[in-house]
Amino acid sequence: MAQGKLLYAQSGGVTAVINATACAVIQTARAVRLPVLAARNGIIGALREELIDTGKESRAAIAALRHTPGGAFGSCRYKLKSIEHSRAQYERLIEVFKAHDIRWFLYNGGNDSADTALKISQIGRELGYPIDVIGVPKTVDNDLAVTDTCPGFGSVAKYTAVSVAEAGLDVESMCESSTKVFIVEVMGRHAGWIAAAGGLAARRADDPPHLILFPEIAFDEASFLARVKAIVEKVGYCTVVASEGLRNAEGQFLAEAGTRDAFGHSQLGGVAPLLAQLVKSRLGYKYHWALPDYLQRSARHLASKTDAEQAYAVGKAAVEYALAGRNAVMPVIVRTSDSPYRWKIEPAPLAKIANHEKKLPKHFIRKDGYGITAAARRYLEPLIRGEDPPRYGKDGLPDYVRLERKLVRKKLPAYAIEDR
Amino acid sequence: MAQGKLLYAQSGGVTAVINATACAVIQTARAVRLPVLAARNGIIGALREELIDTGKESRAAIAALRHTPGGAFGSCRYKLKSIEHSRAQYERLIEVFKAHDIRWFLYNGGNDSADTALKISQIGRELGYPIDVIGVPKTVDNDLAVTDTCPGFGSVAKYTAVSVAEAGLDVESMCESSTKVFIVEVMGRHAGWIAAAGGLAARRADDPPHLILFPEIAFDEASFLARVKAIVEKVGYCTVVASEGLRNAEGQFLAEAGTRDAFGHSQLGGVAPLLAQLVKSRLGYKYHWALPDYLQRSARHLASKTDAEQAYAVGKAAVEYALAGRNAVMPVIVRTSDSPYRWKIEPAPLAKIANHEKKLPKHFIRKDGYGITAAARRYLEPLIRGEDPPRYGKDGLPDYVRLERKLVRKKLPAYAIEDR
Repeated sequence: MAQGKLLYAQSGGVTAVINATACAVIQTARAVRLPVLAARNGIIGALREELIDTGKESRAAIAALRHTPGGAFGSCRYKLKSIEHSRAQYERLIEVFKAHDIRWFLYNGGNDSADTALKISQIGRELGYPIDVIGVPKTVDNDLAVTDTCPGFGSVAKYTAVSVAEAGLDVESMCESSTKVFIVEVMGRHAGWIAAAGGLAARRADDPPHLILFPEIAFDEASFLARVKAIVEKVGYCTVVASEGLRNAEGQFLAEAGTRDAFGHSQLGGVAPLLAQLVKSRLGYKYHWALPDYLQRSARHLASKTDAEQAYAVGKAAVEYALAGRNAVMPVIVRTSDSPYRWKIEPAPLAKIANHEKKLPKHFIRKDGYGITAAARRYLEPLIRGEDPPRYGKDGLPDYVRLERKLVRKKLPAYAIEDR
Repeated sequence: MAQGKLLYAQSGGVTAVINATACAVIQTARAVRLPVLAARNGIIGALREELIDTGKESRAAIAALRHTPGGAFGSCRYKLKSIEHSRAQYERLIEVFKAHDIRWFLYNGGNDSADTALKISQIGRELGYPIDVIGVPKTVDNDLAVTDTCPGFGSVAKYTAVSVAEAGLDVESMCESSTKVFIVEVMGRHAGWIAAAGGLAARRADDPPHLILFPEIAFDEASFLARVKAIVEKVGYCTVVASEGLRNAEGQFLAEAGTRDAFGHSQLGGVAPLLAQLVKSRLGYKYHWALPDYLQRSARHLASKTDAEQAYAVGKAAVEYALAGRNAVMPVIVRTSDSPYRWKIEPAPLAKIANHEKKLPKHFIRKDGYGITAAARRYLEPLIRGEDPPRYGKDGLPDYVRLERKLVRKKLPAYAIEDR
């Protein structure tokens, strides 16, 4: 076995399946007796030399990560700036790597993390310390370049589609005498991937959702209200999936461009309550709205099996790439066939991924701007396929694991994180 | 087999398992060749003589009701007033019963429906038409008297507990550098049953939820903020389950007593965004909030097995009581043991149930007002036990059924519903 240790860190917003990736990393490394440290709370922990010894975690606990949402080692929102700006931070990281004989760094995150991973691999070379860096994809936003999809997205997509289908049946049951318009607000500030996934709920014509409001399409109040009215008159009720990133014609977020409360605070809620109020005041329909927020990205109980498998596969491949001496790459998911759905994992250069953003393709949005196309469905549908439920305890709750998270002894002086 | 037909109607807010009750009613009746009609959209359909012939539905479709959320025949919010006030409506119902040889009426709902069922049984006797009426319990609010619990509640309780546990892991992962306070708003305008169920998420000390805000306890801003601060300082983050029915010391709903937006509309959202904004402005913590709304009561994918079984059992018992000649009763759930959890179904007089409301007992709320007691846990925990997932299609969505809902031919003149 090679000398040295592998450091794994989670970055940015967590997902229902990021721990499946962590599970794969540790299980794959254990199989070849490669010690794995994990940064506590992401890159912050690496800078502070707060390193969790995953060797102290039981085999059962590591296996249970496969089905546990959240980020088991802690994650963070902390972006390293450019090497020019924050050279001392990069040097500190290399010092920490050196002190703990860390030869491989696996950074599990989105766009920003791919960028940071790339920079760390560069500065390692520059400072003459042999560190191989592998980016590992993760984001519910599905906005990473090169990879066909991002682990985490398939599960939030499944959650959204199933929830829209279920709530749709509820609204339909009552629409004769109660709620006529139901709006669910989903994540996706810059791209409508999750909103598009809501469209999968519709198996037949007139099934919910009846309207999807994408961040890519400027919100047109008159057109929206006319649609809602026509749908209520035809179907009896109208369900709407609205992206939190919905913007007006001036490009402002609706949720921010809106109102202030009596205290002068900007609008507390999101887009859904604004739209609901608009429908009520202009059309008079009774409404309800939902804003699942973190529930949508932590709903491991409803994970997509495809997604969970891909999350595991990228973690496994990342360790294999590391041991094969690759550097500055990311294992990406390559779709080889839509039907039957087939995929494989391949390495892609981080340079092609960092600082790129994959947008929802125009041809995935229906011409009228309020729904998804057949092409979108072909792309999305395999990603929500299959179920992979956690084990439940006798108390009716999933048996999610909380790790010991024992830190290894520090060897360096304390380090204060700047720019918090 | 007895002469005549049975009419089944769903009433009020639907649940994840009300169709399991419908399934039981139809399967039990089919086994003895008793024809079942179902009112379209609840009592409104009965008044309008819009009666669905369940005999036209396939055996597979009826079986699939067991796992389908919403109200398959349609429900409504429409309360019949007193016999004195709306005598013509009651007489119309009896006319419809007579025209279609309906000898049994099963009314599946909450408090109001129990009251209506009781009145219909009385007026039937008075008008000399032999109609036996059985109330069938259903409500996520868990506020029916006599019965130990209400079908529908166990599943929303499980959804709430699991969602709080999952989102709690998410928040915990990120709290070092991101969200410190997470608030989830749950249903229960008049009683804190669902809020209390959120407390089941905590298996260990300091597990989420850290605070529960019950409608039974007047909201005290200073005390709440002091608690949030202390918890964030101790645990690193704070999760809150807030009932939509939270009130201030003057007894006003917080969600209504609050602010108006720039248009003078009353606060669009619920309690969660108000509390979040309070935390932000007074304590400065980054917050997120969720408001699952209908998602919580339609989440059949996460139903409690106990709840689904009880929903089926009350439907089966209702038909059995009807055929045994009982009148003006409701099959209720009787708990015979906490541990091991055991229950049975017994008939209870509607007169004891109608217009009573079961409150959350005081001894279920912790002395400090922010959590549940061991007694609450003993009561609640068996209700969320077990899983009963739907079958999923190849497209990753649950195979929920939509019925044919073919109406039988009308025999009476049209009837306009008053007071809409």
